[in-house]
Parts: sequence; C-alpha cells; structure tokens
Amino acid sequence: MQHYYAMIMAGGGGTRLWPMSRQDMPKQLLPLVDDVSMFKTSVDRLAPLFTPDRVYVVTGRKYVHEMRAQAPEIPPQNFIVEPYGKDSGPAAAFGLTVIHRRDPEATVAVLTADHHIQDKEKFRDVLAAAYDVAQQGYIVTLGISPSYPATGFGYIRQGEELCQSNGFTVYASRGFTEKPNLVTATAFLASGDYSWNSGMFIWTAQQALAEFARQQPEMYAALMELQPAVDTPEFDDRLETVWEKIPRISLDYAVMEGAGKMAVIPVDIGWNDVGSWASLYEVLKLDRFGNGFKGRQSERVVLDTRNTLVYSDKLTVTIGVEDLIIIETPDALLICRKDRAQDVKDVVNHLLTTKNYKYL
Amino acid sequence: MQHYYAMIMAGGGGTRLWPMSRQDMPKQLLPLVDDVSMFKTSVDRLAPLFTPDRVYVVTGRKYVHEMRAQAPEIPPQNFIVEPYGKDSGPAAAFGLTVIHRRDPEATVAVLTADHHIQDKEKFRDVLAAAYDVAQQGYIVTLGISPSYPATGFGYIRQGEELCQSNGFTVYASRGFTEKPNLVTATAFLASGDYSWNSGMFIWTAQQALAEFARQQPEMYAALMELQPAVDTPEFDDRLETVWEKIPRISLDYAVMEGAGKMAVIPVDIGWNDVGSWASLYEVLKLDRFGNGFKGRQSERVVLDTRNTLVYSDKLTVTIGVEDLIIIETPDALLICRKDRAQDVKDVVNHLLTTKNYKYL
Repeated sequence: MQHYYAMIMAGGGGTRLWPMSRQDMPKQLLPLVDDVSMFKTSVDRLAPLFTPDRVYVVTGRKYVHEMRAQAPEIPPQNFIVEPYGKDSGPAAAFGLTVIHRRDPEATVAVLTADHHIQDKEKFRDVLAAAYDVAQQGYIVTLGISPSYPATGFGYIRQGEELCQSNGFTVYASRGFTEKPNLVTATAFLASGDYSWNSGMFIWTAQQALAEFARQQPEMYAALMELQPAVDTPEFDDRLETVWEKIPRISLDYAVMEGAGKMAVIPVDIGWNDVGSWASLYEVLKLDRFGNGFKGRQSERVVLDTRNTLVYSDKLTVTIGVEDLIIIETPDALLICRKDRAQDVKDVVNHLLTTKNYKYL
Repeated sequence: MQHYYAMIMAGGGGTRLWPMSRQDMPKQLLPLVDDVSMFKTSVDRLAPLFTPDRVYVVTGRKYVHEMRAQAPEIPPQNFIVEPYGKDSGPAAAFGLTVIHRRDPEATVAVLTADHHIQDKEKFRDVLAAAYDVAQQGYIVTLGISPSYPATGFGYIRQGEELCQSNGFTVYASRGFTEKPNLVTATAFLASGDYSWNSGMFIWTAQQALAEFARQQPEMYAALMELQPAVDTPEFDDRLETVWEKIPRISLDYAVMEGAGKMAVIPVDIGWNDVGSWASLYEVLKLDRFGNGFKGRQSERVVLDTRNTLVYSDKLTVTIGVEDLIIIETPDALLICRKDRAQDVKDVVNHLLTTKNYKYL
C-alpha cells in the first residue's frame, strides 16, 4: 500500500474520565486499559501495516513532549502540533495539509488515540481494505457494527453494496445521523442498515483537501497560506498567523456530513470508545466477581465486592459493595454508582463554574 | 466533693476505625466527632466538676507526648504512663496506686477517653451523684439506658433500689453479663432491668485497691512494691521491674465481675462508644440527606447521595450512592457498606497476618 499514512488525532480532552483525565493529562495519555497509555497502544497496533515513518500524530503543545517520549520511533517531524485546540475539523485539515505537502499522493487513515480496539489484526485488515476503496475515489468511514441501541454515538446509514475488499463488504454511505434518541436508536439497530460512526476515516489527502476547499473555503484558504511554509524556517510564524483565522468546528460537521462519494465498511473489531468509566469497565479484565482493578495487586483487600471498578494506587479496601466506580488520584476521590458514570461530566462542569481550576 | 479525681483511661487501641485509627494514632487521638480529639473532648467535659489538678490520664509511652500537648492544663505528673499495654486491669490498678499514694482519701471516677457523650451536663451530674454513693462504700458503675438490643456491649443487671442521689435513682447491681446474643439482649431490653456497661466506675481508691488485693493478689503485690517509689527518683526503674510481673487482664474480668457491694446508676447521657464507623455515623451532624462529612466543606461534590459517611481531606465526589462509609487517609482508602462496618476489624486482622505492618 504505497503512500498510505496513519494520522492519529491525539489532541482531545474529554471530561468523563475525571478525576484521572485532566486538562494536562488527557485520557489518551493515561494507562487506562493496558499498562501503557491509550496513545501508545494506538501507535503500537498500527505495526506492521504502517512503518513508524508513515505514522503521524496531531496533538497540542501541552501533550507533544510526552507523546514523543512515548513513541520515539515516530520521526519528530511527524508530530503535527496545533498552537491550541480548534476541535477536530482544523486538526484533521492541518495534518492533511502537512502530509499532502510532503507526499501529494498520500492516502491517510484518520484514526483515534483514545479508543479501545480488541481485535487489532482485524483492525489492520479493515484499514488495508479501506485503502483500496479510497483509491477508487471514495471517502471511507469505518462503521462499528452496533451491539446495543446506543444514544451516545452518531450513526452511519448503509446504502447499496459497492464491492468486497480484503474480505470486507463495502457499502455506499447514505450519510450520518447525529446521536439519536432511544426509540430511533432501537429502530436503527433493528433495520440492520446502520453502524456507529467510529470517527475513523480513510481518504486520499487530495480528495480530503478538496472537500475542505468546497465546504470550508475559509479554513482551506488559511491552510493553503500555510502549506508552502511546511518544512521551512517560516513555518512556526506562519502557523501562528494562520491558526488565528481558522474557525472552531468538528470534522463531522466541517466536511463529513456534506461529503460526496462516501463508503462505509461495517466491522466488528471489539471497539469501545472508553467514553466513561462504565465503558472502560466493559473492556477490563475482571475477576470472577466482576471486579476490575488498576493498582498494585498486593495492596487491595476485597470482601464481598461485585461488579466494581477500582483505580487506586493506595491500599484500597472494599467491603460489601457492588456496581461502584471507585477512582482515587493524588488530589481527588470519586465514588460513583456505575449506571451514573455519565454524570461525571456534570461534576467537571460544576468544578469549572465554581472555579476549582486546580482539579480540572 | 473533696478528694474526687477523674482518671481517664487513654491507653487503648482498637481496630474498627481503621484506616484512620492506627497503632500510633489510636481512636482517642483523632478528631472523629469534633474538631478536637476525642481525648481532648473527654478532658474538656470534666470541667467544672474536676479542676485540672484532679484529672489523671493513664496512657502509654507512645501517646503521652501528644496528650500532654493537647491538655497542657493537666499537671505533668498526672499523666500515668504504662511502659507498655497490659489491658485495662493493670492500667486502672496502676493509676489507682499512684493516686492513692498521693491522696489516700481519693475517690476516683474511672472514665473513658474515646466515647461520645452528648449530654455533658448530665454526665457531670451523674458523676457527682456517684461520688456520694461511693462514699457509702459502693463501687458504682454508670449504666447506659439501652436504646436497642445491642450484642456488642456487656450488660449490668439492676437489683433493688438503694437510694436517690443528685436526682438519679441508684440500684444495687446484680452483676455483669458478657456480650449476649440477640435473643438474650432482646429479653434484657424488655425486662427493663438491664443497662449497658459503659466501662465507667466510681469508687474510693482504698476500696478499689482492696478489690485488687482480694481478687488479683499477684498484681496487687507488684503494685505495692511500686507504691512507695511514687514521686521518688526510683520510680521509673521500679516500674520497669514491677510491670513485668503483672498479668494482662481486663478491668471487668480482674475485679468488677467479682466485686462486692456494687451499685449501678442507669443514665441516658447520649452515650455512644464510637466503636465502629457505623457508630460514629450515629453521632455526627448529618445533612438533610443523612450524609455525614469530615473534611473541607468546599472540596466536596455530592450528587444523589444518602446516608453516607465521608471522611476525607481531598476533593471527594459521590454520585448516586447510599449507605456507604468512605474513609480516605494518606495511605489507605476504605469503601464499606454501612451495615458491614464491623468487618473492618477483619481487614486489620488480614493486614496483620499478611504482615502489612505499615498499615496497622
């Protein structure tokens, strides 16, 4: 697969894994599932499909130092550093602008840094399949075969079958649907025509930039000002000027929802967005009582405890509890019923409105 | 009330308030109910009935420094320091030996350092009442009017009415019963003839020592070796020698269960032994959802939380939980269903058998 690049979108924040995730230590830098960070896992699972020089990372200034340290095999110039966050639309367009300058024939898989993927081999297989579809002029989205009527994800509607690729069936995409209500989500699931929007897209850099040119002309113009400066001494100064002009917008809203000639490949790769402590619980190895732990094995006393998630580095004792999320960090402690895990974001909002910035 | 002394027994340990209580920081040194330690509260509530020079403290070498600092008004020589713990029998006898040497006409109220007493004025009133009864040659025990069929306390059976004293009715005691089972405790409660053994006794030092002489001749003989050395330079050396010879035994078992001429004054003073986190919860001021907190008010976010006890000095967030005990210390975290609070002692035993001494 010539000119194939992986571009990991690693700038995001998120609040629902508080108190472990913080503004300075976002979810992707945390060892939430494995012993290494989710970012590192996201890099590692690309091999051998992508050699390190074909892996790009788009992130912010606050995080790039740590990410370079965690993935030293990736060339330093492949870390594309946003001056500050402007949501996923500018982040993707910025990365594509740089890659396209260096390799106008690039095909780019836009990937996430903070999702769990159980079946890594199948993940690489579907990325290989998507490459071929992208060569045929399609913008390819990876659709996750839905396992329940989730109301927290966007959906992609499948149209007619386009082809088979590397053992996967490729469908025309009939477009995106924003997070549905439960009734709609249940109908989507029953129809068999919908998959979850994973946020992973495979397209040629040329076609991607053409979509930005058509749908986001302001952003495109700014980035084209920047493009000739890539890999020159003027780059940093030019970026400062250009970045100011770029609107804040999500990738879906910026170009995906209005893109032409889209394909979707539904796939079951054991995907989990790790979007809350309850989601994380789903992907952890559990003991025979349904408990998931992070922290030192010896420093734990567990009596009559079931279906509970404990993240703590200090001696933690649980007696007679179930369905709890217990998260202990150096400056904060969260005890939350598992089915209330979504409410953690309200706590973060509360801390923000009460100006408890040190906890954010 | 001439020659009346209070002797606070402050040497004990206990394991059921782990992880806050530790071998080096026992329950009585912790600010569990108030903003000051239970020991300090125990001292403070004696005024104005006892002037500081009439207050004695029996404790261990590990704790005496802190206790002197917390109660500097008590003369240094009134701190009676055990070389090491030998249970409550020797502790009481040792204290009585010293007090009796200094004042042969002493009447001594043996009191506790780690119990909560809501009605402090009534507590002083009943101590005054007991003094008069002790002058008539009785060993007086304070009986707590039972509010439920507790199986965790010893009981005292009331006999015939002896007299009225300071507004309290004094009964002959028909003796002690060890912790009963629930059926027996229920029958005790129904009979109206029983009260809980508070562990507080009022007696003349002379009569107390006579009981030790009769029932614990070995201990008595050892302490009589020590007595002439009180307030002399030989005291410390003599104590080392004498203490070795003294058997380990509880005060109840050593003399109370076999004592003659005992009286009991049943009283309702809002007594609570704070014997577990669940007991402590009972005496705390609660919010309107039944939650009790210790820690900085501002650093707490409480969503849909009921009947829960939180002791933490770091930002603590609870969401959707009820009937929990949440105790956070610098090196340990306890999350326990409230009705399982007794099991905390099992955890401490487990830490002991697994040699996790640093947590004890």
